[in-house]
Amino acid sequence: MHFTSEQRLDDAVLEREFTLGEIPGILWTPASASAPAPLILLSPPPLGLRKTYPRLVARARHAAADGFATATIELPGSGDRPHWPGAEQARADLRRAMEAGEPVSDEIIDALILPLVDKSVPEWQAALDALLPLPEIGGPVGYSGGVISIGTRLAVVEPRISAAVLFAGSFVPRAMFEEARQVTIPLHLLLQWDDEGNDRQAALDLFDAFGSKEKTLHANMGGHTGVPQSAGDEAGRFLARHLK
Amino acid sequence: MHFTSEQRLDDAVLEREFTLGEIPGILWTPASASAPAPLILLSPPPLGLRKTYPRLVARARHAAADGFATATIELPGSGDRPHWPGAEQARADLRRAMEAGEPVSDEIIDALILPLVDKSVPEWQAALDALLPLPEIGGPVGYSGGVISIGTRLAVVEPRISAAVLFAGSFVPRAMFEEARQVTIPLHLLLQWDDEGNDRQAALDLFDAFGSKEKTLHANMGGHTGVPQSAGDEAGRFLARHLK
Repeated sequence: MHFTSEQRLDDAVLEREFTLGEIPGILWTPASASAPAPLILLSPPPLGLRKTYPRLVARARHAAADGFATATIELPGSGDRPHWPGAEQARADLRRAMEAGEPVSDEIIDALILPLVDKSVPEWQAALDALLPLPEIGGPVGYSGGVISIGTRLAVVEPRISAAVLFAGSFVPRAMFEEARQVTIPLHLLLQWDDEGNDRQAALDLFDAFGSKEKTLHANMGGHTGVPQSAGDEAGRFLARHLK
Repeated sequence: MHFTSEQRLDDAVLEREFTLGEIPGILWTPASASAPAPLILLSPPPLGLRKTYPRLVARARHAAADGFATATIELPGSGDRPHWPGAEQARADLRRAMEAGEPVSDEIIDALILPLVDKSVPEWQAALDALLPLPEIGGPVGYSGGVISIGTRLAVVEPRISAAVLFAGSFVPRAMFEEARQVTIPLHLLLQWDDEGNDRQAALDLFDAFGSKEKTLHANMGGHTGVPQSAGDEAGRFLARHLK
């Protein structure tokens, strides 16, 4: 991991861009921390870090005020990262189905999501390998993320993650329901009730499938990007409760 | 309204029992309030105030610490209040259906719930008439209640209620879905995901039916009485946000 830039935000947060091999990322740490800070992985939606930066940095500032470090990396196929064979085709098939008002088939969902999960989960684990030895980071790790299947797989395979906030806003391959049963860490699931691009019943079924004894579902009105401030605050309190 | 007893709890809360006609009730006010306190109606589950007192007083203490007055009255048919013709029959029919593992019919649910709603809603309105002129009470009114159909009807007919916390833990007559569409105040709905005596799908359908632009559903693991402390705290913050 190489740090490539560094700036202070309002004297409260130290923001450092880094590269992990070819993957760009950002680390935010509380500027005034006297002890190592627990880390929250902020997994972005697949829109590119540049486009989602305003939302991510707002969450990073909140987390820093609560004493947390946060980090994000660019997802495979997002931003300037190369696409893989089949990704363009899957997106075109999805667009076509949605414009035609047809149900999105399991084949399209699998082609869209499963390669993304397979590629990105080892990258988040590599990011953890690189971030956790830093002296300013210590304690349990939380995850807060945009593509629910990535968070589900990570929660199964990565024992260093202690609690996760998941966002029911992306298509879920059938295979993920089986993986969900293997999740045991505390979960906080956000669902936008009127999310036009999301299958509400699939989100409720996935919530039901998670094996965690402690799981909570917070559903709010509005579309994909309309998560109310109060819901974001509650998700932050969930992580604070489990990582401190 | 006649106050019948008065005691201080930990110097923080003034607890006064009262009667409103033949209905017993309890009013809790912050002992140190310098200004009139907004009121939260704590509508109990239909088990009798004596049995639910420990839960109610815990919520009253929390609310008082946040600067709220709280009040409750005995539901019709609960505690020492007389039952009405048909109530015993409806309960016996319910028990028989549940013990036989049969679905609870609309007829049983209507006989069980609709008379309770018809009788109790005017009583809560009479309680408001009696409580709001008290000098220690002022500002917007919230509702937090155990029988969701009572809260739904009250939210429709009582303009003095500004926000409501509802608990999806009791059977819902079909007719209430139509009333739910007429509700416009902010709602916070608690759902225990594994509530053995509750129809989860009916609760989700009711959440969907409420006409309120601002509504939030918080689902948690566990049975009827297993609402986690964090979920209670969030409901309290919802009311504080809307009543202050």
